[in-house]
Amino acid sequence: MTAANVAGLPTPCLLLDRQRMQANIDRMAARAAELGVRLRPHVKTCKSVEIARLMCDPGHPAITVSTLREAEYFAAAGFSDILYAVSIVPQRMDRLLALNARGANVQVLLDAVATARAVGAVATATGQVVDAWIEIDVDGHRAGLQPDDPVLVDVARAVHETPGTRLAGVLTHAGGAYDCRSADALESHAEQERRRCVRAARTVRDAGIPCREVSVGSTPTALSARSLAGVTELRAGVYVFFDLVQAGLGVCRTDDIALTVLTTVISHNRPQRRLLIDAGGLALSKDHGTAEQRHDCGYGLVASVADGRPVPGLRVDAVNQEHGIVALPPDLDFAAFPVGSRLRILPNHACMTAAAYEEYHVLDAAGEASERWPRCNGW
Amino acid sequence: MTAANVAGLPTPCLLLDRQRMQANIDRMAARAAELGVRLRPHVKTCKSVEIARLMCDPGHPAITVSTLREAEYFAAAGFSDILYAVSIVPQRMDRLLALNARGANVQVLLDAVATARAVGAVATATGQVVDAWIEIDVDGHRAGLQPDDPVLVDVARAVHETPGTRLAGVLTHAGGAYDCRSADALESHAEQERRRCVRAARTVRDAGIPCREVSVGSTPTALSARSLAGVTELRAGVYVFFDLVQAGLGVCRTDDIALTVLTTVISHNRPQRRLLIDAGGLALSKDHGTAEQRHDCGYGLVASVADGRPVPGLRVDAVNQEHGIVALPPDLDFAAFPVGSRLRILPNHACMTAAAYEEYHVLDAAGEASERWPRCNGW
Repeated sequence: MTAANVAGLPTPCLLLDRQRMQANIDRMAARAAELGVRLRPHVKTCKSVEIARLMCDPGHPAITVSTLREAEYFAAAGFSDILYAVSIVPQRMDRLLALNARGANVQVLLDAVATARAVGAVATATGQVVDAWIEIDVDGHRAGLQPDDPVLVDVARAVHETPGTRLAGVLTHAGGAYDCRSADALESHAEQERRRCVRAARTVRDAGIPCREVSVGSTPTALSARSLAGVTELRAGVYVFFDLVQAGLGVCRTDDIALTVLTTVISHNRPQRRLLIDAGGLALSKDHGTAEQRHDCGYGLVASVADGRPVPGLRVDAVNQEHGIVALPPDLDFAAFPVGSRLRILPNHACMTAAAYEEYHVLDAAGEASERWPRCNGW
Repeated sequence: MTAANVAGLPTPCLLLDRQRMQANIDRMAARAAELGVRLRPHVKTCKSVEIARLMCDPGHPAITVSTLREAEYFAAAGFSDILYAVSIVPQRMDRLLALNARGANVQVLLDAVATARAVGAVATATGQVVDAWIEIDVDGHRAGLQPDDPVLVDVARAVHETPGTRLAGVLTHAGGAYDCRSADALESHAEQERRRCVRAARTVRDAGIPCREVSVGSTPTALSARSLAGVTELRAGVYVFFDLVQAGLGVCRTDDIALTVLTTVISHNRPQRRLLIDAGGLALSKDHGTAEQRHDCGYGLVASVADGRPVPGLRVDAVNQEHGIVALPPDLDFAAFPVGSRLRILPNHACMTAAAYEEYHVLDAAGEASERWPRCNGW
């Protein structure tokens, strides 16, 4: 049920179903507990202090961030244990060291000896020691060192021996999981992620270098792993909202998706049987991540405002900057979607969609838009 | 040449080459003069007061906007003649009427009798009269009425007779031009746009209803039209920066593109011969508008910082949220792109890319980042 005050919100805007979100948060927390690992939520999806607090273990609120602006925003809100999980470049260290000088522990990610030395030199010059993680590539997805790359021990030794850095552990992101097309494939991918990252840690330890932590993660592998033996920490982010890509992967149901875009029907194109809505490429993003999945959801599925449930047969077929185009199937009538009426759009990729907005309108159990929570965008 | 202070900018950020932009602005202004029509730039691309002032005829600064927030932002900066070129819904009229009550002339776009009556009723209730344009569909691209749709005269009459509205004219956007694959096809499409929109105006006038203005536009048709006989006004926006989609259409050269994203090389993936850069899906957008063109530019072409010229063989092949992946061809060496070095990315679609940023860093003739100009994002 959605209360009357939602009807008064200017569109497009983000609606966040608090009950669904809490269920998603509880599910991942239970997974981490069951697997015996610490959960370090990735807050690049939500970019919200209010949401991050709900995602974290209150006893040890550890988070992952993807930009220095996130690090600054969350540090200002009292978060201390912050892993900046994008390859550090020495030129960025000034902003990071400024946070650590004020009491945060922002940690860096790297994969090269030269970077380790340069980061260490900058930290040393300010009298600081920075915790550094080494990125491991477990599936050729993006970045990091192969577990058997001889450079791995060189990097670990450089971090360990450079005065300004301290080795925290090894870290991977199994982004290749997004190409899996079955639950079995996801489970295998999660096991590959675990095995290869644990092997990288063993390689470092076998060289006599302390490697305390083993951090793995991605929402689909986190929800598919049977064991995380040898792993100490799990990172995931998009689970907080879920989205159509995750539903397509089979790790959530459409009804678990907590984030929708509220939109208005702005015109009827009767000859072409199209609804025009005010959620276009900027409001939804041009992420078409379901294109290669079993169900191509276009640029999002159309849902009713009342219950957030998809309207069968309706999706956003095309987007221009401020227009979404929804083809109306023969069994539906324009009269059901008058100009000025509202719809909700389930996003393909929640991280990309949310990034266009400054705030969330949080729906409480009664469907009332009871609070507005800000986001931190940009860099 | 790019001056030393650019090297100190945090990345990713937007660089705007002022000389290139001015040349683009001058080119379109000359086109409008040559074609004998008023230019009403679409400021949804730049969303910047500083840039809009350069785009406009100082004697009559008329602009087109795509959101009410743009209308409010530009009205606050002194712009008065503002065409809100997205189908109006009556629920939005309060914000619009508030601007007009303070002296602006924000005009609406519509294509239905019921909308015309509802808009008129709201305006009348505040004692205002709103200028309304009727949207015409010239190529089945998106929205509007066919020039020969009998409803057209009904809508025109409703606007004309409803006390709170006044008919400004007919308006179209030939978005189908983006599917053209040759200069000849573009010229034909521009002529179709002109002919059909002029025909719509004639239909209205033949019914005895005054229809003063005929507004057409899109950057590719504006630059391809041989005649705009019967047209009074030309709208276009992306020409101010141009982008790879426009270059692919053949209406600009790559060297005309005035907007680039400054990025940093953050890692080398040597086994896979990839550069990792800090311009990913959020920094570039996921617009892949060149995918169907002759040259698929991935998510952008990689250019040197020094001169903004593309580095042959380098493009952004894939994007994640904060990572861009650039495959390094066999003839190029990692040593030419050290970690921490800077590159520029030419965007596929300037409107989408710019929307991720709060400001432009404006490069002067010496390549110095001499000014920062804010943007107005959101709704």
